[in-house]
Amino acid sequence: MDQHLLRVAIGKEPADLVITNGQVVNVCSGEVYPGGVAVAGNRIAAVGDVAYTIGEKTQVIDAGGKYLTPGFIDGHIHPESANLSLGRFAEIVLCHGTTSVFTDLHEIGVVGGIDAMNAALEEARQTPLKYYWVVPSHIPFSPGVETSGGRIDAGIIEQAMARKEAVGLSEVVSPYVAMELPDLMRSLDVTTEQGKVIAGHGPETHGPMWNAFAAAGVTNDHEALSAEEILLRVRSGVHAQLRHNLVVPTLPQMITALTKDGIDSRMVSLVTDDTTAIVLANEGHMDYLVRLALEQGVDWVTAIQMVTLNAAQAFHKDFEIGSLAPGRFADINIVEGPEHFRVLKTVANGKVVAEDLRPAAPLPLAGHAPVLLNTFHLQRPVAASDLVIAARQGARMAHVHVMRTLPWVPITEGGEADLPVRDGYIAADPAQDLLHIAVIERHHRTGNIGRAFLGGMGLKRGAMASSIGHDHHNIVVMGADPGDMALAANRVAEMQGGIVLAENGCIVEEIALPILGLLTDLDAWTLAEKRRSLLAKAAERGCAVSDAFMFLSFITLAAIPAFAITDKGYVDVAKQQIVDPVLSYTP
Amino acid sequence: MDQHLLRVAIGKEPADLVITNGQVVNVCSGEVYPGGVAVAGNRIAAVGDVAYTIGEKTQVIDAGGKYLTPGFIDGHIHPESANLSLGRFAEIVLCHGTTSVFTDLHEIGVVGGIDAMNAALEEARQTPLKYYWVVPSHIPFSPGVETSGGRIDAGIIEQAMARKEAVGLSEVVSPYVAMELPDLMRSLDVTTEQGKVIAGHGPETHGPMWNAFAAAGVTNDHEALSAEEILLRVRSGVHAQLRHNLVVPTLPQMITALTKDGIDSRMVSLVTDDTTAIVLANEGHMDYLVRLALEQGVDWVTAIQMVTLNAAQAFHKDFEIGSLAPGRFADINIVEGPEHFRVLKTVANGKVVAEDLRPAAPLPLAGHAPVLLNTFHLQRPVAASDLVIAARQGARMAHVHVMRTLPWVPITEGGEADLPVRDGYIAADPAQDLLHIAVIERHHRTGNIGRAFLGGMGLKRGAMASSIGHDHHNIVVMGADPGDMALAANRVAEMQGGIVLAENGCIVEEIALPILGLLTDLDAWTLAEKRRSLLAKAAERGCAVSDAFMFLSFITLAAIPAFAITDKGYVDVAKQQIVDPVLSYTP
Repeated sequence: MDQHLLRVAIGKEPADLVITNGQVVNVCSGEVYPGGVAVAGNRIAAVGDVAYTIGEKTQVIDAGGKYLTPGFIDGHIHPESANLSLGRFAEIVLCHGTTSVFTDLHEIGVVGGIDAMNAALEEARQTPLKYYWVVPSHIPFSPGVETSGGRIDAGIIEQAMARKEAVGLSEVVSPYVAMELPDLMRSLDVTTEQGKVIAGHGPETHGPMWNAFAAAGVTNDHEALSAEEILLRVRSGVHAQLRHNLVVPTLPQMITALTKDGIDSRMVSLVTDDTTAIVLANEGHMDYLVRLALEQGVDWVTAIQMVTLNAAQAFHKDFEIGSLAPGRFADINIVEGPEHFRVLKTVANGKVVAEDLRPAAPLPLAGHAPVLLNTFHLQRPVAASDLVIAARQGARMAHVHVMRTLPWVPITEGGEADLPVRDGYIAADPAQDLLHIAVIERHHRTGNIGRAFLGGMGLKRGAMASSIGHDHHNIVVMGADPGDMALAANRVAEMQGGIVLAENGCIVEEIALPILGLLTDLDAWTLAEKRRSLLAKAAERGCAVSDAFMFLSFITLAAIPAFAITDKGYVDVAKQQIVDPVLSYTP
Repeated sequence: MDQHLLRVAIGKEPADLVITNGQVVNVCSGEVYPGGVAVAGNRIAAVGDVAYTIGEKTQVIDAGGKYLTPGFIDGHIHPESANLSLGRFAEIVLCHGTTSVFTDLHEIGVVGGIDAMNAALEEARQTPLKYYWVVPSHIPFSPGVETSGGRIDAGIIEQAMARKEAVGLSEVVSPYVAMELPDLMRSLDVTTEQGKVIAGHGPETHGPMWNAFAAAGVTNDHEALSAEEILLRVRSGVHAQLRHNLVVPTLPQMITALTKDGIDSRMVSLVTDDTTAIVLANEGHMDYLVRLALEQGVDWVTAIQMVTLNAAQAFHKDFEIGSLAPGRFADINIVEGPEHFRVLKTVANGKVVAEDLRPAAPLPLAGHAPVLLNTFHLQRPVAASDLVIAARQGARMAHVHVMRTLPWVPITEGGEADLPVRDGYIAADPAQDLLHIAVIERHHRTGNIGRAFLGGMGLKRGAMASSIGHDHHNIVVMGADPGDMALAANRVAEMQGGIVLAENGCIVEEIALPILGLLTDLDAWTLAEKRRSLLAKAAERGCAVSDAFMFLSFITLAAIPAFAITDKGYVDVAKQQIVDPVLSYTP
């Protein structure tokens, strides 16, 4: 028992920090009323009338009549998508009022397995951001058609779930439940026996399939895309994580479940799932989603509940986070009201960590364990000829299958095209908006390289390579010119990860991501600036999508329709099979 | 994983039971809509459109357009107060739609300690009612001034809390938190470390004392008596259990926190705390409280949420009980709507257990472990002279301190009176409405007998004895005539527990409670009838309170103002001291 906390609460010892003169947004009672918050150590000692807790040495912050909310919670996020080390990610989201995230650290596991996740959790513990770990339910995601670095199975999950920081099982896939995959069934049992939470991944799941998904014990899910799908979840007792991000900016169409259908909102929270350094620096994090919800007509207290109490309740963590109440962690935001909502100051674990969207003090960065570094293992640098498809001898033209991405979302559609044969290989044709795309295995020196053709990106010259590719994080490279492709891909490996734009035999711009090939210790603002610059250079070369690297990272995901590419080849997602993109030749 | 459940949900196997043609009261979404519920084994497989789950062998119940609700939950109840064995208690509350209770089995522990609680939990497991065990935080309650049979301390709590059926720590007392009692501090730590729930007992606790109580980790409490105290709890993140029973019939005055103040109701549930067989048989259980709430203007769905989802969430058991949703236990009520609310049919664990407020089939009764029986240990039968206060030699009159109960609630006020000395003892005087009262230790053959004078009961002749006396359950006996008192008390011991009315050397009526001296295997309806008859006989003899045995059980409780009696003597509750009721003599 924290005796200092008890004694501050009862008035025997002075508080360490007191915020006075605020408007308490009480997410438990649904009220807003004048008051303050008293803090003892890392916990809240009193809320409301807190004058009695102030002593000589108490740090007093006058909130100037602004609103006081609990620290915000993102109930489903992969911080790796922002390409920031866990310290740097904490730094930027704390500036925006987020004090807790629920994450599986899945991308870290994809590259480095359980050892890398353990090392990352150690880094996470050194930040003022609470990283609650939801254990990944499987790595790799599509074992037949991709090669990942790490691996997670039921045996590893059983050990991981027994740990205190493990709060549940992540991304349980609806068809896998329906198939009763034995490894998954065992992992579900382990999670339930430990009294922990089963988080689902149930896109396009309805009717009996949905019922089986919920009956398996899934109690939250982030894959709704419509108000109807929000209703389906809540009606089934499945907490609906209402997601909004660059890829699925669907808050406005889903929020009508509350604003029009008027359901009880307690089982709805806002989540980002994925975000980028640019979005974090420009728009923010949960504060951005609150602003969107307010714009859509959600009332003030409900909007705040959806990023605090509701999310905490979904994970049974409401006794420690998600409300301004005695005994809870002292995670407190001072914010502007609903008309001009923004975060003014963030307190995490009883300390002021951010003011005016900037860190209150420089964040000490964790050193990185060896398992998080030097994760690229190629047999040899790739050659241009490794990245293209050799043509049948004597052929002049090839008739090929191609995938084209939609312009606003990295979902591909299949198609066919005729491409010329040049120097013995089937050549991309930027005039038809068709590029070479290849994925180079980089974990186990298998030498695997997958090759295909990609449309919809618009790039006219050069090549772009990246070490971020769901759900295996091999090196993905696309381009008009095979030489530039090899240059870019080899540069990614040389940097031990990163994103690169190359043209005419030169590196145009690059960003190193040396931590697992995914993350950097650059701060979010710097990374955002560098990435904006790199994307601008790509746009100058014709690139037509908002963020080609983000698009590439999903085009490598063998779980999103209709086609994908992995180190094993060109993937027909529905069939979960590797297929040959070459259909026929014209002699 | 329950494969049958998954297969029924997905439509591969037929459901075992399906309720069709209902109006689903969806406590998660706050909606009411037409639909049914499909059951596989003891779990819900589907809700809403369930036609696809019906096979040839499926038992189909047509709800005839009535409402379907989750089984009701009492989040804080001592079933022992109804004097029914756990099987018989389950039987009656299931008839009224209650399928889960949260209980500490504290009274059982008071008599028989942890061994008796373990044996009782074994009996509980054999019923279709879910008994969630909230481990008592201390036995005895007032160690200095009473003798209990069993004992609970932090060491025992640590072992108990590790058990799966233990869901939390019960009745944590606010002043004990403020005093930082080391044993309690350790028990709180044990509970928090196990991720379990701390349930409070915080009457008349406000301001800094309340903040300390909440800061200690208390997350629910049942001791509010006013709407203001409901608000205090919810605003502090403490789930408010809105209690209503014979002793504190306070629902109407508290419910305005919802109906007038309009707070978010998710952190409010209805509880009984204590009830009796008569109330259960006449009025019901949680269904009775729902009816009261509806009468007070609470809306339909909110009223149902307060006896289902809200209570489940308070204990983090919402993933298994409290809603009609796939994967939850198949605890389902078919009920009339809000205008004529009553329970028509109860399904528990997937089986119909009650119809029209009667059991669907006779309940098999558990045998009782030896530790639950033969719990009376007296040095010898008591004599009349043991139960009265010997007067100083030669005195004619005594000036004494007396306690008088209020007529509607067993709260006593102190006073003074002059009583005659007769046959060497200070004699009760029914003309002044003053009786002898005595408590005889019955656990450890200590021979302790406490003696005092009690007013306000109205009894003119004979004596009434009982083995139910909080918080020690020794034999309490009151009467006008010491001979009848001894007869009644000895009869209680002879029966190994019970309640007795005696007059003129005869037993007028009696009810045996042979299980720990607290409980019977009579069914609730029979017990209610017998008790009504016994109370009517007491009323014929002048008894003026509604239920003298219930009153007596609280007048022995050294925690309720202003005075009490235990085996150690007459207790000044505020001082927690034994005091001499004799003030002076007139020679």
